[in-house]
Amino acid sequence: MQLTGVLGIGLVDPATPVVHADDLGFTRGDGCFEGCRVIDGAVDKIEAHVARIHRSAATLGITFDEPPWRALIDEVTAAWPADLEGSMRWFLTRGRPGGAATGIVTIDELPAAFGAQRRDGIRAVTLTRGTTYGAFADAPWLLGGVKSISYAVNMAAQREAARRGAEDVIFLSVDGQVLEAPTSAVVWTVADSMYTIPTGDNGILASTTQQRLFERAAEQGWRTAITDARVEDLHAADGVFLAGTVRGAVDVVAIDGRPRPSRDVDLVRTVQKLAGF
Amino acid sequence: MQLTGVLGIGLVDPATPVVHADDLGFTRGDGCFEGCRVIDGAVDKIEAHVARIHRSAATLGITFDEPPWRALIDEVTAAWPADLEGSMRWFLTRGRPGGAATGIVTIDELPAAFGAQRRDGIRAVTLTRGTTYGAFADAPWLLGGVKSISYAVNMAAQREAARRGAEDVIFLSVDGQVLEAPTSAVVWTVADSMYTIPTGDNGILASTTQQRLFERAAEQGWRTAITDARVEDLHAADGVFLAGTVRGAVDVVAIDGRPRPSRDVDLVRTVQKLAGF
Repeated sequence: MQLTGVLGIGLVDPATPVVHADDLGFTRGDGCFEGCRVIDGAVDKIEAHVARIHRSAATLGITFDEPPWRALIDEVTAAWPADLEGSMRWFLTRGRPGGAATGIVTIDELPAAFGAQRRDGIRAVTLTRGTTYGAFADAPWLLGGVKSISYAVNMAAQREAARRGAEDVIFLSVDGQVLEAPTSAVVWTVADSMYTIPTGDNGILASTTQQRLFERAAEQGWRTAITDARVEDLHAADGVFLAGTVRGAVDVVAIDGRPRPSRDVDLVRTVQKLAGF
Repeated sequence: MQLTGVLGIGLVDPATPVVHADDLGFTRGDGCFEGCRVIDGAVDKIEAHVARIHRSAATLGITFDEPPWRALIDEVTAAWPADLEGSMRWFLTRGRPGGAATGIVTIDELPAAFGAQRRDGIRAVTLTRGTTYGAFADAPWLLGGVKSISYAVNMAAQREAARRGAEDVIFLSVDGQVLEAPTSAVVWTVADSMYTIPTGDNGILASTTQQRLFERAAEQGWRTAITDARVEDLHAADGVFLAGTVRGAVDVVAIDGRPRPSRDVDLVRTVQKLAGF
């Protein structure tokens, strides 16, 4: 099951090509996207995604024309079975040279691996991202905080993880600071405290799932804090999680081949539930 | 005038979309490309481009299936007017999930600005790329030396240059070393010596235009050398050039708003001619 919608057209057959060869999203990766969870016939935390794509688009200098986008999102969502969890993506590109922005909305079924990862956790490896921790200060052209479709390095890093027998990556700055995962945020807990990495000069993306998790955790009495970390801090934590929109909060059971201390299944379940899973 | 060819199909109407919404080249920028100059009815230095896309594809783990690619390139080239200089691009992506690689060949007319830039030179600004000079050592997932289609940062940097009243960018590492331009290599001359930056751990792309330029320059008695540089070295050079396949070698007349010493038109013409322009 797969759905494709095109801004200005509506639903189309996913077997039909919809992007021109000279679309700058295709030729230059010049665009941004959002990944959303479709559940019970609705887009989960849609306002957070709308807010974030507005920010990505503004940094890129591309217009996110909200009313027709919302109409397209609604149309595609309505065509998806209400009883099936879906992985939705919105793609906004600069379009063809001299033309209007391109908008595409897709829904796919969840990757087959996500069920096991939610249940059993994942193994992560740390990989350098090549940037210094403060590299993105005053350098908007580096597109820090933009959910860009130029994701080739993120995908190559996940392939490297697979080669090393792991399911995902925790990126580090060249100076050894924890950054984020290719498609999720890093969250860790120590006793009744929950932590994540600050956004800003390090270029990482604000995570809508981490934000919801922290809001709900705070309501439940957790202390939440935004702080820098090194890999040693993750090894020392009670729980380490990668928080993403579609996969949810999955726990990390090993880092760089070093198993984490015994898995606290209650903690995992608590954090997943707070994240909405 | 614009041509589009699709691997496995052949020439198609450029007004027809050819890329599926779930093509990983579109959704993730997961692919590579080559830019070539079409002149006198042929692809200039085609073997250097074939060799480079093989290297890019190998690093990405995508197959560049050479015989059908050459047939497609020949078909599109033959359809282009022999008396018109063209900008050709080859796009190779990972394709749709679980499917075969996507291959697309396009030819467009030269960007209107190139004529003036070849004649009058360009103003450049230096911008950080956020990476350290050695960041790409033992980190193949950073895709150093791969001509990836995840070019959003390169495009954003060129927009930043335009905002600063310049035509192009010279990227620097965070430690102040000269790297490359978003779509060309940096070359400079001092007396009868010609220099460029080494490829390797700094992640920059091997430039086919710089390589040809250096081969021909050496034949004409120039001393050529590969060496690190800082911006001061460029300010002190006799000539500074950005060498790219389609635009050729254009000379830099100002860096960060600081005009370079008087322009040696004979030197510019000599270097352009050695580069094949």
